[in-house]
Amino acid sequence: MNRATRSSADARHMEHELAPGVGDGTPAPVANGYVHGYSDHEARRLSDQADTLAALLHAGTVYPAGSRVLEVGCGVGAQTLHLVESSPGARITAIDASGVSLSQARARFRDHPRRGQVGWQQADLFQLPYGEGYFDHLFICFVLEHLPDPRRALTSLRRVLRPGGTITVIEGDHGSAFFHPDSADARAVIGHQIRLQAAAGGNALVGRQVQPLLTAAGYEDVAVRARTVYADSTRPGLVEGFTRNTFIAMIESVRDDVLAAGFTGLASWDQGIAGLHRAADGGGTFHYTFAKGHAVNPGPAPREP
Amino acid sequence: MNRATRSSADARHMEHELAPGVGDGTPAPVANGYVHGYSDHEARRLSDQADTLAALLHAGTVYPAGSRVLEVGCGVGAQTLHLVESSPGARITAIDASGVSLSQARARFRDHPRRGQVGWQQADLFQLPYGEGYFDHLFICFVLEHLPDPRRALTSLRRVLRPGGTITVIEGDHGSAFFHPDSADARAVIGHQIRLQAAAGGNALVGRQVQPLLTAAGYEDVAVRARTVYADSTRPGLVEGFTRNTFIAMIESVRDDVLAAGFTGLASWDQGIAGLHRAADGGGTFHYTFAKGHAVNPGPAPREP
Repeated sequence: MNRATRSSADARHMEHELAPGVGDGTPAPVANGYVHGYSDHEARRLSDQADTLAALLHAGTVYPAGSRVLEVGCGVGAQTLHLVESSPGARITAIDASGVSLSQARARFRDHPRRGQVGWQQADLFQLPYGEGYFDHLFICFVLEHLPDPRRALTSLRRVLRPGGTITVIEGDHGSAFFHPDSADARAVIGHQIRLQAAAGGNALVGRQVQPLLTAAGYEDVAVRARTVYADSTRPGLVEGFTRNTFIAMIESVRDDVLAAGFTGLASWDQGIAGLHRAADGGGTFHYTFAKGHAVNPGPAPREP
Repeated sequence: MNRATRSSADARHMEHELAPGVGDGTPAPVANGYVHGYSDHEARRLSDQADTLAALLHAGTVYPAGSRVLEVGCGVGAQTLHLVESSPGARITAIDASGVSLSQARARFRDHPRRGQVGWQQADLFQLPYGEGYFDHLFICFVLEHLPDPRRALTSLRRVLRPGGTITVIEGDHGSAFFHPDSADARAVIGHQIRLQAAAGGNALVGRQVQPLLTAAGYEDVAVRARTVYADSTRPGLVEGFTRNTFIAMIESVRDDVLAAGFTGLASWDQGIAGLHRAADGGGTFHYTFAKGHAVNPGPAPREP
């Protein structure tokens, strides 16, 4: 399961990704590098936030024993772990563009009692090494946000999903963030992250588009629901786990790129970050909404020219 | 039950309210008029949107038979109806600042089989004609958004709530709205509504403050949860009932006030409204998040000087 192919998508949990050579109008390859590195610390951070969000995002996603599930863009395996926990007996194939991420994912599962449930594969989602209709279910989380043409990716994936099989899509939307105390400076730094991700060919506002994308890609019985994280000082674990260590940390991680791009100066950046932190202090509140979509494949998509 | 007192709060369902003489720094009276009138059509509109939202907002709110419940700012009784449906046997007292609204509320209940469950009272929430600790529960929905000092109102209400009694607060937050296709023009018209409501002494962004307000008012065991409405073309009833007939209609209803205030011109207003409508067309999506808070009164609040 170590066959290297051209990478196309790299699932990161609300992470900015600035890959060289993207945003030039060509449709496929997005992430060939990962600017924040692949350190153990980074892997642990991604894992922590996945645990915080797991109950919210994975609720309702249970695959039958024996069914074949493809996780597209598994990254370091943070969501894979929840798939295994929720669906004992399902046969999960987890693909990613990054061999480094896959190594970390394998290491995470080394001592897991159900490690045999997962097969790992480095693969390009547009050139999957599986036959037509091989999978019963597709799971794709925090991936569409990085793709220049998410509609085309969703259409392409239908080839390996059997007729009647399901797809589950989870994405964030940075435009959903609102907080108390409100702060124009804080809204501005979020805006810089959105702009940076757009410049890299992605879309940090893709959550609001999950339904129209699934519909345009030819899926049926499309049902999207909002899953909102709300944290205030009566829930300190969520403030720490989500507001600080997930959302603010994600924004802070793009500081150098934002400054290098000239979107703003250091002083106003720091003011914005301070504004975000006030939403995590006593008396502050923070909201963020994810989209979770579910749909059915009516049959193979027509081949694109 | 017709005793008229000085009005102080007037519950409207996500409605703008521009009352003369407010926003001048004095704490109490807010709504002495209701700019959109009290027509049957208006009452029906408020009722329709309350029905659409009822399942979302009233879930989990059930009061025991025999318990005394005060609904603060009942308006035309749209929420009162759901309280009665959810809590048969609870003794509900519904107060409002507006005698006209109360008349419409009574008319709504004229043929209701459980009309005897509700007593109607025109009253000022700062001068309630009830003894200390008279009520077991308080219910307050879409009211804080209209008050210049919602913390003071919440503190004042503790006098009539018995120690150990609960308060339930539901508010919207117009800063929570996001939609596809995104539109700067549409965001601008929402901003004009927020500004207009602020000029009238209210706060259309109060949803994000419900937890800190309840805590500052001295309540304990404060728990606030986000309740997000999400509508897309796979749910046409929700698009019609919420996106179009509740949210966009609410924004459209303040057009003349916004133009009179000079916040924008007619052309850009119309562009913004058109942008909002695109979120209700095929392929469009719309999100809005309410805050629902629950807390316990530890005992009577110290009297203010």
